[in-house]
Amino acid sequence: MEIKIMKNILDRNQNKANEVRDLLTSKRVLMVNIISSPGAGKTTLLERTLGELSEKFRIGVIEGDITTDRDAQRLKRFGIPIVVINTGGGCHLDSHSISKVLDHFDLDNLDVIFVENVGNLICPSQFDLGETFKLAVVSVAEGDDKPEKYPMVFREAKAVILNKIDLIPHTNFNNENFTSDLKKINDTIARFDVSCTRGDDMERWFNWISGQISNRYSG
Amino acid sequence: MEIKIMKNILDRNQNKANEVRDLLTSKRVLMVNIISSPGAGKTTLLERTLGELSEKFRIGVIEGDITTDRDAQRLKRFGIPIVVINTGGGCHLDSHSISKVLDHFDLDNLDVIFVENVGNLICPSQFDLGETFKLAVVSVAEGDDKPEKYPMVFREAKAVILNKIDLIPHTNFNNENFTSDLKKINDTIARFDVSCTRGDDMERWFNWISGQISNRYSG
Repeated sequence: MEIKIMKNILDRNQNKANEVRDLLTSKRVLMVNIISSPGAGKTTLLERTLGELSEKFRIGVIEGDITTDRDAQRLKRFGIPIVVINTGGGCHLDSHSISKVLDHFDLDNLDVIFVENVGNLICPSQFDLGETFKLAVVSVAEGDDKPEKYPMVFREAKAVILNKIDLIPHTNFNNENFTSDLKKINDTIARFDVSCTRGDDMERWFNWISGQISNRYSG
Repeated sequence: MEIKIMKNILDRNQNKANEVRDLLTSKRVLMVNIISSPGAGKTTLLERTLGELSEKFRIGVIEGDITTDRDAQRLKRFGIPIVVINTGGGCHLDSHSISKVLDHFDLDNLDVIFVENVGNLICPSQFDLGETFKLAVVSVAEGDDKPEKYPMVFREAKAVILNKIDLIPHTNFNNENFTSDLKKINDTIARFDVSCTRGDDMERWFNWISGQISNRYSG
């Protein structure tokens, strides 16, 4: 019975996601759905990325949070449009909540919307928001076994950020295990090993995401 | 509509949880429901705890995992009964899945069952398994803002393990912020700051959990 209910919920979500995607495509706005565990560094990644790109591109942010606007507060200084969706305990964003807040953006004058999903490596990967692609973020401190144990988001994502590489010397993170497990699940995923807190090795990421935005509707 | 469906699911879960709790109480078996984000260190905590307690107490483990038995493999060497529940994508354990696997344990000859829930700081806190109490695990690397951003599990837990304290010098974790936010949410929670990987400062935890097991049905 629960399986049938879940299918109905996912079907309704998919229909609305298709609408969102059609709208964004017609407006030529890229949308990146950022998914990670709590504390993997999504907001710090956004701080670094906005610091680099907010003068080059017209950027909006949707912040998914259970109850606070703490993450949005951290991004206010960039002077870009930010909308907070408080899920009130809900464990993921869905396409209906995204659809409702798109009115707050001037889509005719926007290049990209970054969506910071609720901190959860499982549920958000099941709900299409109408995004152009998913971005997985995983921290070294979570351990090298995450791709194998939580494969869904790594399977679905176009790119993965391995964050907190400055902690590698202080943990038992095994890069070879992580790499081979990830490859088994998704051998075309783009990968960026960085430290968002320190700002280490961000250049390749900045170039890649700039390319995704610039070329978003070519070819 | 989804709210009503969710209420039905939670009601059915609660009924079964009450049955599980009655059974465990009648058998004098403590059950600890361990909840954390992916990679916070639940399995390493269990390795340390079983290493210390498996000769003093009769222990069973239920391992909740999405798809693998990797965590259970890590605990095999202790020679205790372990049951794996693969949720097949499901983001939390529920009381029905617990009820079904209790047959695999000899409850008349058991003191405690540790349940390692699926790695998720949100959904597992909504589903009573029939446990005696919940134990939250959170790692320094996740940041000091987790209690405020994900309050449910911290509100419900009897104890919290702050793990990976050896990483404090390498992160921007602010212990005062963590402490005051946690206090606002739950000012009676027992707290243990440890490093499970290194084995630092585990003694207070071992004593506390031993006391919980020993005194489980006194007073």
